[in-house]
Amino acid sequence: MARDPACLFCRIVAGTTPAEFLYRDEHTAVLRDVRPQAPFHALVIPVEHVRTLDDLREEHAALVAELVLRAVTLAREHGLAEGYRLVWNCGADAGQSVWHIHLHVLGGRALAWPPG
Amino acid sequence: MARDPACLFCRIVAGTTPAEFLYRDEHTAVLRDVRPQAPFHALVIPVEHVRTLDDLREEHAALVAELVLRAVTLAREHGLAEGYRLVWNCGADAGQSVWHIHLHVLGGRALAWPPG
Repeated sequence: MARDPACLFCRIVAGTTPAEFLYRDEHTAVLRDVRPQAPFHALVIPVEHVRTLDDLREEHAALVAELVLRAVTLAREHGLAEGYRLVWNCGADAGQSVWHIHLHVLGGRALAWPPG
Repeated sequence: MARDPACLFCRIVAGTTPAEFLYRDEHTAVLRDVRPQAPFHALVIPVEHVRTLDDLREEHAALVAELVLRAVTLAREHGLAEGYRLVWNCGADAGQSVWHIHLHVLGGRALAWPPG
C-alpha cells in the first residue's frame, strides 16, 4: 500500500503523528477537521496515500465506494438528520491543503449556496 | 431499476423531459447545472432513482464508485487542470433541491472556503 512519510495523513494513519480517530478500519479512517466550518466537520480519508482525486483510477473503485459509504454512515451515526454536505477538493482552485485525498462531511447548520 | 415518474432526473434519463447530456451510459449520466455557480458546473447522476445519499447502502457500492470516477474523468476531459470541487448535498440543511442524488462538479475558478 502506498505511503508517503512526508504526508500528514499518512503519518496520522501510521500512528507517528497523534490524532483522534472517529473511526478506523483497514482501508479508511475518520478524523475531525482541525479548522471546523460547521458544528460537525469530519474528514474521511483512505489509509492508502492517494495524492489527489485526479490520481483515482478504476482500481480504486472499491476504495472510493468505501469512503463515500463511510461518510454516509458517519452522518447517520452523528445524528445529521436535517442533512449534510460532502465535499472533495482537488487541486489549487479548490484550495486542497493536504495532498492526501480527504472527503469533508459538514453538517449541523444550514449550508449556503454556492459551495465556495 | 428504481424509477420515479415524478422525479425530474428520472424523466430526463428516460427521455420524457429534454436535456443535453455531457455523457450517458447504462448507469450514469452527466448534465449541465441549469444555475451554474462556476465556469464549469455539471451534475453526475445515477440512472437509477436514489432519493438521497442517506438511501445509499452496500449494494450501491459499484454505482457510487462509477459516479465519482465519472466526475474525475469529466474534470480531466474538460481541462480542469487547476482543480475542481465535488459536492454532494443531502437533505434540507444542505439545500438539496432535486430528490435524486447528483454529484456537483465545479471548476474553472478559485473556489472559496467554507464550502457554503
